[in-house]
Amino acid sequence: MMSGNDEDPGGGAGEFMSVWDAIRSRRNVRAFADRPVDPAHLDLILEAARRSPSSQNWQPWDFVLVTGRERLVELAKVWQGAGHVAGSAATIALIAPAADNQYQRAQFDLGQATMSIMLAAAGLGIGSCHSGVGDKQLARELLSLPQDRECSFLISLGYPADRPLTPISKPARKPFDEVVHRERW
Amino acid sequence: MMSGNDEDPGGGAGEFMSVWDAIRSRRNVRAFADRPVDPAHLDLILEAARRSPSSQNWQPWDFVLVTGRERLVELAKVWQGAGHVAGSAATIALIAPAADNQYQRAQFDLGQATMSIMLAAAGLGIGSCHSGVGDKQLARELLSLPQDRECSFLISLGYPADRPLTPISKPARKPFDEVVHRERW
Repeated sequence: MMSGNDEDPGGGAGEFMSVWDAIRSRRNVRAFADRPVDPAHLDLILEAARRSPSSQNWQPWDFVLVTGRERLVELAKVWQGAGHVAGSAATIALIAPAADNQYQRAQFDLGQATMSIMLAAAGLGIGSCHSGVGDKQLARELLSLPQDRECSFLISLGYPADRPLTPISKPARKPFDEVVHRERW
Repeated sequence: MMSGNDEDPGGGAGEFMSVWDAIRSRRNVRAFADRPVDPAHLDLILEAARRSPSSQNWQPWDFVLVTGRERLVELAKVWQGAGHVAGSAATIALIAPAADNQYQRAQFDLGQATMSIMLAAAGLGIGSCHSGVGDKQLARELLSLPQDRECSFLISLGYPADRPLTPISKPARKPFDEVVHRERW
């Protein structure tokens, strides 16, 4: 556990993949091995989230790390697509301002924080999967959120049940030359 | 330049920092050295963008890579905070659907793509800075965008004019223990 309030957790860097390998290895992992993730690694992933950039550095987020099985199983019920949370080693709940305009404004920055989390995790060989939150009230109760905050997304974490994360050579994406334009459209 | 439409650009991985170093080294760089970025590295950064995850894999983006000085100087006029684009070695324009509802929905995913771009760049020692777009019409004209697309953000790229990217030990962020909660709020 990190004790200092702005200390660099430091150690562990040597265990990370290169950025390039992490970017190519990250994939949605929805079935997790029954194997815990080192709490120090979870803190490194949370530190990556904390360091994310945001509009005018407003940092519109909080992160709730959930590792207790009972709460994970309940959290998985906040949306039909959140089933993978139940069997995760840990799930990070992304908390945003509840006010509509702030909630909207926060979306881009929450996307940045999500990618930081997922790439830091991938860099440690830890799989991740993102889920929306349909039942905001249930999430609020399970996480004891104050009225001015809302659970925006869940990111489940854990070692893949199937195969380790390794670079994917042909990802399911539009072709490079279709989405990349040179100088102008 | 990449020629294959879904080929893995492959090479260059050995030049990337570890994920952890890239996450800690990324900072907003607004003044760039007068030094070009290897086109192969720009393609790796664009490939990182292409691989970003998105809601139901809808990939609501296009990327316009601008390296011509004249167009960069003009692009810098789309917003008061876009001045750094003028002196960048290259700038990636993030293009989103123009329809209001789709544009809103795309924000989270554009945030994910932005972070992929910035971390891939940082992993190569390349600085970056994000800018909003105030004058959407000017951006549309400069980039020859079709009517159903809109320039949402600009990400300038280049080697820092001041000092190389190295890990920042105490980033200007809220304290870890303030934004990270355990099991519940």
